[in-house]
Amino acid sequence: MNAPRLTDTVRIVGAGLLGTSIGLALSKKGLDVVIEDSSPANRSLAIDYGAGRSASEGDSPKLVVVCVPPDVTASVVAAELAAFPNAVVTDVASVKVSIQRQLEALGADQTRYVGSHPMAGRERGGAISGRADLFVGRPWVIAASDLTSSQAISLVQDLALDLEAAVISTTPSNHDRAVALVSHVPQLVSSLLAARLVEADLADVALAGQGLRDTTRIAASDPKLWLQILGANSDEVAGVLKAFAADLDLVVEALEDVSAQGSLSKLGRALEAGNRGVERIPGKHGTKATAYAQIVVMIDDKPGELGRLFNEVGEIGVNIEELKLEHSPSSLIGLVELFVMPNEEAKLVTELASRGWRIAG
Amino acid sequence: MNAPRLTDTVRIVGAGLLGTSIGLALSKKGLDVVIEDSSPANRSLAIDYGAGRSASEGDSPKLVVVCVPPDVTASVVAAELAAFPNAVVTDVASVKVSIQRQLEALGADQTRYVGSHPMAGRERGGAISGRADLFVGRPWVIAASDLTSSQAISLVQDLALDLEAAVISTTPSNHDRAVALVSHVPQLVSSLLAARLVEADLADVALAGQGLRDTTRIAASDPKLWLQILGANSDEVAGVLKAFAADLDLVVEALEDVSAQGSLSKLGRALEAGNRGVERIPGKHGTKATAYAQIVVMIDDKPGELGRLFNEVGEIGVNIEELKLEHSPSSLIGLVELFVMPNEEAKLVTELASRGWRIAG
Repeated sequence: MNAPRLTDTVRIVGAGLLGTSIGLALSKKGLDVVIEDSSPANRSLAIDYGAGRSASEGDSPKLVVVCVPPDVTASVVAAELAAFPNAVVTDVASVKVSIQRQLEALGADQTRYVGSHPMAGRERGGAISGRADLFVGRPWVIAASDLTSSQAISLVQDLALDLEAAVISTTPSNHDRAVALVSHVPQLVSSLLAARLVEADLADVALAGQGLRDTTRIAASDPKLWLQILGANSDEVAGVLKAFAADLDLVVEALEDVSAQGSLSKLGRALEAGNRGVERIPGKHGTKATAYAQIVVMIDDKPGELGRLFNEVGEIGVNIEELKLEHSPSSLIGLVELFVMPNEEAKLVTELASRGWRIAG
Repeated sequence: MNAPRLTDTVRIVGAGLLGTSIGLALSKKGLDVVIEDSSPANRSLAIDYGAGRSASEGDSPKLVVVCVPPDVTASVVAAELAAFPNAVVTDVASVKVSIQRQLEALGADQTRYVGSHPMAGRERGGAISGRADLFVGRPWVIAASDLTSSQAISLVQDLALDLEAAVISTTPSNHDRAVALVSHVPQLVSSLLAARLVEADLADVALAGQGLRDTTRIAASDPKLWLQILGANSDEVAGVLKAFAADLDLVVEALEDVSAQGSLSKLGRALEAGNRGVERIPGKHGTKATAYAQIVVMIDDKPGELGRLFNEVGEIGVNIEELKLEHSPSSLIGLVELFVMPNEEAKLVTELASRGWRIAG
């Protein structure tokens, strides 16, 4: 393990999943970590897990990490800036502009405040779900304002690097515009799509395939947390959703009179724009998504079968770029989708078939 | 291998992915299969793959399977019904009412026509992607009309069972209503969502996480095929989309004035309806989706690592219910998400950690 870049006491406020995970990782690196929570039970649990120690009178942290829900982030940040006049304070909330505005209104010292957004972790789970490795390889967005000092930014970069995260630097407004597009709007669209199932016949819903499952997976997210996020980024989200709604209206109009002049070309343009949009999403390791070849292998749905399969894939020497496990709706067969570089497809299919694996379509 | 239920010559029209796969499976079972295609090159390729033989003068198939694009399905079905007056004719198009109406208009003998929709196979790939196992464990919807004879239905059930598919029986209109909800609307919504990325800053798109990837995956589908499907099921799709658009308008209105009385409760209701909708999607093997416990394991992104992991999971004796492979955007680490029954989570985490695996959040 590398020596940490941070050297002084770090104070964490909020012993949920993120706060506990940061505490665990920094404690493992030998740093002095103080962990606080408005709930004594949460705090004790996090300390018991090894995420840090209780605060004591003489503490003088150089860095404070505020890991509380978005609706109370600004007030806690302001209180910490006031309590520790020599410390840099950062937060982990997934909205940034509204927090900055609240800090302005509170008259907080923004030279020592650095907005952060580590894009890791599920939205559920408290201290009990904390993991020292939560941030490894995940993006950590640093969205400092014009007022933030460069020393403060540098200290939060050290924090992200100590957690083995990948630092991305931007401004608060660019951050909020980006997450509206790539996170907040997809969340609402997924929720609205899943809501169509509420009053549907269960026999209809039973025909669901992977497409519906993928498009509605995030509709299972926690409404309370999302309400705070959406409330705090409502302008950006409304902007993207209005453009989406305008496109949707054109599509509905075309579907309502599909034989009218221009209807099919309207639908075609919507589908083609979707093709072009999805191509812009970067693939693994930040590179452009490659068109992987897909191979579907059937396995018995029991312990050990995946091990046997991936062991043999390893022996064959082909790297799996993406994978997905599907289940047949009506039998005890698992379908493992393997995505490999196109030039390795033939080799893998031949070798797997020769070892007796059933390759599906 | 069980003896096939079908016994006589089967004629397949259309040597694409579905037709070739059906031909391969039935030929493997020892049945006499004729495979036709309007393109002699496609036909030769499918025959070369072992999907059947060329047609000859005295052929008298008992079953004809029409596997051509939706826009020409009805005319080909009508021609086959006329050419083989003793045969049952089925098709595989993913819309059913419009084909039935076209057959009525063409004066076809609908007692011998059975509408089918095997829900398998990717939308791309011709004969070259054909696999005998394509339909194993997948739903095969039989949507016969009131006119269809019970003998005809029974023969198509035999076909589906010979292909090891799971038969689901419904009516053409129930089928089209169901696929509008679970397939056609998700497709358009995904396309419209991905279209928002077309003119976005690439730096914004670079923050994409798994949520955006999941919700836009099917936006990469073939626009030409989808235009045919949407055109043929426009009424049902428009109905669902209009209800979606009405919900969307409420959400946009709430976001535009988020501090107004009732705005947050409108947003909250939309998010909660999404929760309830996604809970109605059946989980694996047709059972209700269980709330699996999720464990994220970090692996080096190189051949053999997945094998080593799943081998040890097999030794530990825990069954993996779902799995997903993610890649860190900036490093050569793979994150394997394992979903297991909640009562097995602690065991798996402890055992994997003791074997040196890094468990992330």
